[in-house]
Amino acid sequence: MLTHLNAKGEARMVDVSAKAVEKRTAVAEGFIRLQPATLRLIRADRVSKGNVLAVAQIAGIQAAKKTADLIPLCHPLALTSVALDFVFVQRPKSGLRLRATAQIAARTGVEMEALTAVSVAALAIYDMCKAVDKTMAITDVRLVSKTKRPA
Amino acid sequence: MLTHLNAKGEARMVDVSAKAVEKRTAVAEGFIRLQPATLRLIRADRVSKGNVLAVAQIAGIQAAKKTADLIPLCHPLALTSVALDFVFVQRPKSGLRLRATAQIAARTGVEMEALTAVSVAALAIYDMCKAVDKTMAITDVRLVSKTKRPA
Amino acid sequence: MLTHLNAKGEARMVDVSAKAVEKRTAVAEGFIRLQPATLRLIRADRVSKGNVLAVAQIAGIQAAKKTADLIPLCHPLALTSVALDFVFVQRPKSGLRLRATAQIAARTGVEMEALTAVSVAALAIYDMCKAVDKTMAITDVRLVSKTKRPA
Amino acid sequence: MLTHLNAKGEARMVDVSAKAVEKRTAVAEGFIRLQPATLRLIRADRVSKGNVLAVAQIAGIQAAKKTADLIPLCHPLALTSVALDFVFVQRPKSGLRLRATAQIAARTGVEMEALTAVSVAALAIYDMCKAVDKTMAITDVRLVSKTKRPA
Amino acid sequence: MLTHLNAKGEARMVDVSAKAVEKRTAVAEGFIRLQPATLRLIRADRVSKGNVLAVAQIAGIQAAKKTADLIPLCHPLALTSVALDFVFVQRPKSGLRLRATAQIAARTGVEMEALTAVSVAALAIYDMCKAVDKTMAITDVRLVSKTKRPA
Amino acid sequence: MLTHLNAKGEARMVDVSAKAVEKRTAVAEGFIRLQPATLRLIRADRVSKGNVLAVAQIAGIQAAKKTADLIPLCHPLALTSVALDFVFVQRPKSGLRLRATAQIAARTGVEMEALTAVSVAALAIYDMCKAVDKTMAITDVRLVSKTKRPA
Repeated sequence: MLTHLNAKGEARMVDVSAKAVEKRTAVAEGFIRLQPATLRLIRADRVSKGNVLAVAQIAGIQAAKKTADLIPLCHPLALTSVALDFVFVQRPKSGLRLRATAQIAARTGVEMEALTAVSVAALAIYDMCKAVDKTMAITDVRLVSKTKRPA
Repeated sequence: MLTHLNAKGEARMVDVSAKAVEKRTAVAEGFIRLQPATLRLIRADRVSKGNVLAVAQIAGIQAAKKTADLIPLCHPLALTSVALDFVFVQRPKSGLRLRATAQIAARTGVEMEALTAVSVAALAIYDMCKAVDKTMAITDVRLVSKTKRPA
Repeated sequence: MLTHLNAKGEARMVDVSAKAVEKRTAVAEGFIRLQPATLRLIRADRVSKGNVLAVAQIAGIQAAKKTADLIPLCHPLALTSVALDFVFVQRPKSGLRLRATAQIAARTGVEMEALTAVSVAALAIYDMCKAVDKTMAITDVRLVSKTKRPA
Repeated sequence: MLTHLNAKGEARMVDVSAKAVEKRTAVAEGFIRLQPATLRLIRADRVSKGNVLAVAQIAGIQAAKKTADLIPLCHPLALTSVALDFVFVQRPKSGLRLRATAQIAARTGVEMEALTAVSVAALAIYDMCKAVDKTMAITDVRLVSKTKRPA
Repeated sequence: MLTHLNAKGEARMVDVSAKAVEKRTAVAEGFIRLQPATLRLIRADRVSKGNVLAVAQIAGIQAAKKTADLIPLCHPLALTSVALDFVFVQRPKSGLRLRATAQIAARTGVEMEALTAVSVAALAIYDMCKAVDKTMAITDVRLVSKTKRPA
Repeated sequence: MLTHLNAKGEARMVDVSAKAVEKRTAVAEGFIRLQPATLRLIRADRVSKGNVLAVAQIAGIQAAKKTADLIPLCHPLALTSVALDFVFVQRPKSGLRLRATAQIAARTGVEMEALTAVSVAALAIYDMCKAVDKTMAITDVRLVSKTKRPA
C-alpha cells in the first residue's frame, strides 16, 4: 500500500517518531546528455576555472537542504553531509554523470535528498548550457544505494 | 560561448534589461519509469481520490515558482501561468509522462521553470511510490518547445 | 465553476497574461481573542517598547511577500506596499483587531496577500502570548474590500 | 510575564536547551465558513477528484514545515508527522472544519506548527473558492490539545 | 587545508556525523556607522516605539534561522536560542554595536548563525535609515567567542 | 523623517506605486580581512579550481535574490542582473575586496540587493576559511553608487 495515503486516501506526512535514530546514507545518480562540443566547453572551463560544475555542485548541495520544502510529504531533516561528483562520459552517449551522496543521523532516510541534489544540479547545468546546446536531456535519475547503521 | 560566464570566466546573472518584455511560453516533458503494478495503484487512487498525482502537480507548480531560488543564475520571474499534466504509459516502458507549460510576460524565457516543474513533480511521485517500487527512474527531462510573441 | 480546476478537474495556476496591469488594492481583517489581562500586558509593552505588535507587524508583512510560496495556486507578485494596523478591542469580546492593506500594479489582485498578512500576524501574537493566555482564538479573517484602477 | 521579551523588553528566541527531548503532539482546529453551494462544489470535486481539499492539505502540511520561517520567535523544528483532516459542516453554519495534528521528538512543543497548518490550509481553500463565494471567513483557529511523553 | 574542499578541490558539505552532540554557543559582533543625527532619530523612536531596532532584531533572528539557506556549505541546524543586542556608541565613531548570541545542541558550531544574525540586522538598519543617512557603513563583523560543553 | 515608519511610528512597506519604472543600478562594496596565508590558499585554489570564490559568488548572487525575504521592509523585486567581483588586496591590510552590481527596471532601487550580495558573499568566505584563519573580519560594507535612467 502506498504509505503516504491515510485510511481515507488523503495525503499526510508519515509518522516516523517510532523509528530509531540511525546513521543513514543514500547515493543517487543521474545523467545529462550533452553534445561533445558542450562537454569540451565545460571541461575547458573546469580546468581553468571550473565554474559550470562549481555552480551545479552548489545548486545540488543547496537543493538537498531544501528537499522538505520541495517534496510535500518529506520530513525536514538536518543533513550531516552532502557531496556531489561529476564524471565526463564520451560514449555510448556524451554527457556528464552526476552522483550525490547524502548522510544523516535520523529516524528516516535521505534518498530524496540525494535524488534532489542530482536533479537540481542537472537543471543548473542545463540552464548554463542552454544557449549553446539545444539537444540536452536529463536521464536515469535514480537511487543507487541506501544503507543504515546504528548511530 | 557560455553566456553565464563573464570575461574572467566567473558566474554572473546575465543582464536582460535590454530585452523586450514579451509573452513567452515554454513546454517541458519528462518520464518516470514505474512498474505496471505501481501504475495501477496510482491509477486506482486517481480514479477514487487522485492524491498521488495531485501532490505531484502541486509540487511541480510550487517548484516552478522557486526556480530562481534553485537554479543559481536564473532570474526571478513573476510567472503568469503554470500547468502540469500526466499521461499513463504502458509501453515500450510503463510509467507516467509529465508535461509542464509555463507562461510569462517578461524579458527572459521560462524554460527552466517548465523543466523544474517536471523534475520536482517526478521527484514527488518517486517519494510517494518508493516504498512499493524499487526500480523507478526519472528520464528524458527536456525542453519540448519555446515560443514568444509581443506582450 | 471553480477557476483553479482545469478541464480534467486538476489543479493549475490560472493564466492571467490576458488581464490588464492595474493598480490593485485589497484590505483584509481578522481578530484575535485575548483575555483582558493579556491585552493589558501587550498594551503596556506597546507604550514602552511595542514589541509584541512590532513582531506581529513584521511577521505579517514578511508573510504577505511569501504568499505565493504558501498558497499553491497563487501567482508570484511584486507587492508595492503592505501595511498592518492593530486596534485594541474591549467588547463584546476583548482582543486585537488586525487590518492589512496590500497594493500592487499587476494583472491579478492581492486579496490573498492581505489575508495572509492578517493570518500570520495573528499567529505571531498567538505565539508570543501562548504562555500566559490559554483561551486565545483567531476569528473573522476575511476580505473587507478590493479595488482596482488604471496603472 | 511574556516569555519572549528579555530583561530590556526586546524580542528574542527563548533558550530551550535545558528542556528535555520529549515526544510532543499538538492538535489545532479552525473553520472556514462557506456557502452551501460552495460546499457542494468542493464535495463534488472531492468525490470525483478531491482537488480542493488535496491542495489545502498539502498547503497546510508544507506550511507546518515553514512555521519557524513565518513566526519570528519560533524555533526551527524537525517535525516527525503532520496530518490534516476536513469535516463538512452544514449547521449552525455551513463550511469546513479543519483539524491538524503535529508531532515531534524535541525540546519544545508544536502548537504553532499545528495552528499554522490549519491557518494556511484555510487560506488555500479561500484562494480556490474566492471566485465563487464572496462571504467566506476563517474563524475559530485555536489549539485543541497539547501532550507530551518521554521520547 | 581548507576543510570544505574535497580531494579534487570541489565544494562539499563536510561530514560531521562523527562529532559529538554538544551544547555550543557562539557570539558575534558588528558595528554600523551612523551619523549622530541618525542615532538620535533611532533612539527617539526606540524610547517611544522602538521600531528600528525591533525590525533589525527580528531580521537578525530570522536570518540566523536561514543560515544554511544563505551559506552554501553550512549544515541545517535546529537552533535552541538566538538573541541580539544593540549598544548606542558615540565615539570614536558614532553608530550602533550589534551583538548576537546563538546556541544549539548539535554536532557542529553556530558561528555562522551568529555572524549572519549580526550582518542581516545591520542590513535592516541600513535599509531603514538609508533615506536620511548617506554615509553608513557596516564594519567589524567578526566572531567574538565560541564555546562548547557536554549536552 | 525615517520613511519606513508610518504616522503612528509603526513599521510598514513604503508604497512605491506612484514612482516611475526606471532602469536602476546600484554598486556596493565590502572587504573581508584575511591573513596573507589564507589569501594564498584561496588564490592557489582560484588558479587551479577557483572554488572558494565560486562558492562566494553564487552565495552572493542567490542572496541578492532573497533580499526581500531577509530585509523586512524591502520590496520584492525582479532583478535583471547581479554580478560580483573580488580583488586580492595585500595592503594596508590583506584580504579580499568584494564588489556587487545589481540592476533592475522597477519603481524602487536595488541598493539593498547589492549590499546583501556583498554581505552574504563575505559570510560565505568567512565560513570556508574559518578553520584556518581565526582573525577574519568583514568591514566597510557600503553603497558605492546608485544611478537611474528611463526604462
